[in-house]
Amino acid sequence: MIEKQMAIQAPELSVAKWFNVDAPLSLEQLHGRPVFIHAFQMLCPGCVSHAIPQTQKVYEMFAKTDLAVIGLHTVFEHHDAMTPVSLEAFIHEYRLTFPIGVDTSGTGHLPVSMERYGMCGTPTTVLIDRDGILVSHKFGRIDDLSLGVMIASLLARQTTPAGTDTGSPQTDNAVDAVECGPDACPAT
Amino acid sequence: MIEKQMAIQAPELSVAKWFNVDAPLSLEQLHGRPVFIHAFQMLCPGCVSHAIPQTQKVYEMFAKTDLAVIGLHTVFEHHDAMTPVSLEAFIHEYRLTFPIGVDTSGTGHLPVSMERYGMCGTPTTVLIDRDGILVSHKFGRIDDLSLGVMIASLLARQTTPAGTDTGSPQTDNAVDAVECGPDACPAT
Amino acid sequence: MIEKQMAIQAPELSVAKWFNVDAPLSLEQLHGRPVFIHAFQMLCPGCVSHAIPQTQKVYEMFAKTDLAVIGLHTVFEHHDAMTPVSLEAFIHEYRLTFPIGVDTSGTGHLPVSMERYGMCGTPTTVLIDRDGILVSHKFGRIDDLSLGVMIASLLARQTTPAGTDTGSPQTDNAVDAVECGPDACPAT
Amino acid sequence: MIEKQMAIQAPELSVAKWFNVDAPLSLEQLHGRPVFIHAFQMLCPGCVSHAIPQTQKVYEMFAKTDLAVIGLHTVFEHHDAMTPVSLEAFIHEYRLTFPIGVDTSGTGHLPVSMERYGMCGTPTTVLIDRDGILVSHKFGRIDDLSLGVMIASLLARQTTPAGTDTGSPQTDNAVDAVECGPDACPAT
Repeated sequence: MIEKQMAIQAPELSVAKWFNVDAPLSLEQLHGRPVFIHAFQMLCPGCVSHAIPQTQKVYEMFAKTDLAVIGLHTVFEHHDAMTPVSLEAFIHEYRLTFPIGVDTSGTGHLPVSMERYGMCGTPTTVLIDRDGILVSHKFGRIDDLSLGVMIASLLARQTTPAGTDTGSPQTDNAVDAVECGPDACPAT
Repeated sequence: MIEKQMAIQAPELSVAKWFNVDAPLSLEQLHGRPVFIHAFQMLCPGCVSHAIPQTQKVYEMFAKTDLAVIGLHTVFEHHDAMTPVSLEAFIHEYRLTFPIGVDTSGTGHLPVSMERYGMCGTPTTVLIDRDGILVSHKFGRIDDLSLGVMIASLLARQTTPAGTDTGSPQTDNAVDAVECGPDACPAT
Repeated sequence: MIEKQMAIQAPELSVAKWFNVDAPLSLEQLHGRPVFIHAFQMLCPGCVSHAIPQTQKVYEMFAKTDLAVIGLHTVFEHHDAMTPVSLEAFIHEYRLTFPIGVDTSGTGHLPVSMERYGMCGTPTTVLIDRDGILVSHKFGRIDDLSLGVMIASLLARQTTPAGTDTGSPQTDNAVDAVECGPDACPAT
Repeated sequence: MIEKQMAIQAPELSVAKWFNVDAPLSLEQLHGRPVFIHAFQMLCPGCVSHAIPQTQKVYEMFAKTDLAVIGLHTVFEHHDAMTPVSLEAFIHEYRLTFPIGVDTSGTGHLPVSMERYGMCGTPTTVLIDRDGILVSHKFGRIDDLSLGVMIASLLARQTTPAGTDTGSPQTDNAVDAVECGPDACPAT
């Protein structure tokens, strides 16, 4: 797990198409509520086996007014294989009900939001506090116990003094493969 | 698990495109060797989590000259989402190395080989003996212990008297959902 | 999962023998620190497969000065089969390193601490806040995500107004079997 | 997994006490039927999490007249912690229904049957053919698919020419730890 901690304002998402929402979402409109973002690709094995079901579980566990949960389809490889048409069928077959946005294609092979956040690959888990501050940013598999601790710490805090993060347990499983492994797909 | 047992000659496969082979395969050319066919869809959750890794494990366990293993991509829903382009990326990301054929599109929503075999959905596991006789045909999840027993029984037999199947353990988990469940996608 | 919430002072533990400690522990001496107690039996299948490894994981995740973790061997059945001699071998073989106390035998079949807390069986998870207030008390399997949320909520709170518990996610899997099931052993 | 293959007559079991039987069993009386023996210890983690449930599954899968399944409690460490009294409670709590014999104490720390078979530790899986010939003898975790293949190969063969074993897949995971690991406890 590679973690970057930045006491900076979380950049706005750039989304080309939304699923499972009545109207497009923006981080700006979610101010006042912590936000959990799961960046994934539908053909990333570690996302499918672990991080996507975990996100669905998080979504079902908390009231929508307590925690906003967003899936972000950040395709950085096999673009023809993971179109919105394929994603829609994937969402249907895996019975995903949380809001999912398709990250806007960029000028390179990385999509726009993924580049703004400096994500290393999929799955990436991003936590944003009530003030819109980017609290943590992790690439790779996060176990459920650690994630529960991270989310509850975020829910408990009312303001985020810059540079402070007491919530994350000390785990550090570096992912440096160039190809997708069972847990993660790095963007090279 | 729905099982059909027919002491009939296994119908030939109709395949539009092959992956992981040097030359197209046919059941006819495999006579003399038992054949294990796993029919799947790349967006069928039960295939992805269980049956596809199981097929990869079977493929790695036996010498190619002892047992032929074939994956068959039998798309009967979301056709635009599961094209050969998407399948190729899926095979790459999940590191599948066994031969995989794309079942030829039919006149209805079922592809040709799937219709010839009367398959109920995905995953379906088909076993064919050395004489090309269809020995068993199961829809749904098969646990590893039962599958090991089935394959070894097939390898042990030299000829197949019609109507005889002593190899399959007594399991019968009927799948009758209309939507994909965690274990299987029925073709309606 | 059966949950009892009481804004009462957590009763002191009664322990006949300690493992993995330099000196006996007491709740009194742990004031100022939240306490996580896992009540188990070494022959309770749900404890062995899930709750005991979970407790070991919690123990390794947090600094000892942040969270106190205690295992409590609350034998209420098969007393001759789960003596301290057997428990010691169990602790060795399962490589448990958190402090474990043997609940003192009572006048009935329930041991003393188990009776003081009104536990329904094993596994039971008890959370006590910095002020020694019993915050939650759950019988049965708790998934890792929920437990992470519960512990971090406890760590975040500085005082416990009576009757308030905001930390527990809404889960309620009642266990009413009379025999041990895969997840829990009820004390009848 | 350490495998020894010997085309020798399987030595008779020496059992001090039986559970789950009407009358004591012997290999001699089982001639004509293949025999599956699972040697375990109730405090061996790899036995409890994997090999014992696997044995229960094998027991339920085959007719008793086709395959004899025997559990053998081969205690070679922590003797005071794994007495027949503790074993009886263990069998009850884990709902084991296959015949289980307590290996007779020997003059050293290894029990008698364990020594006769030259077992390296627990779990050990022993297969004996219809003629009473010891066909295979494996220490450590066996995956379900491999075990299914081994058992069905044994059921399919009618006689055992000395020195021949075609049934076992090529797996070889040597276990050389001196302490119990997650998969196995070696007898040192």
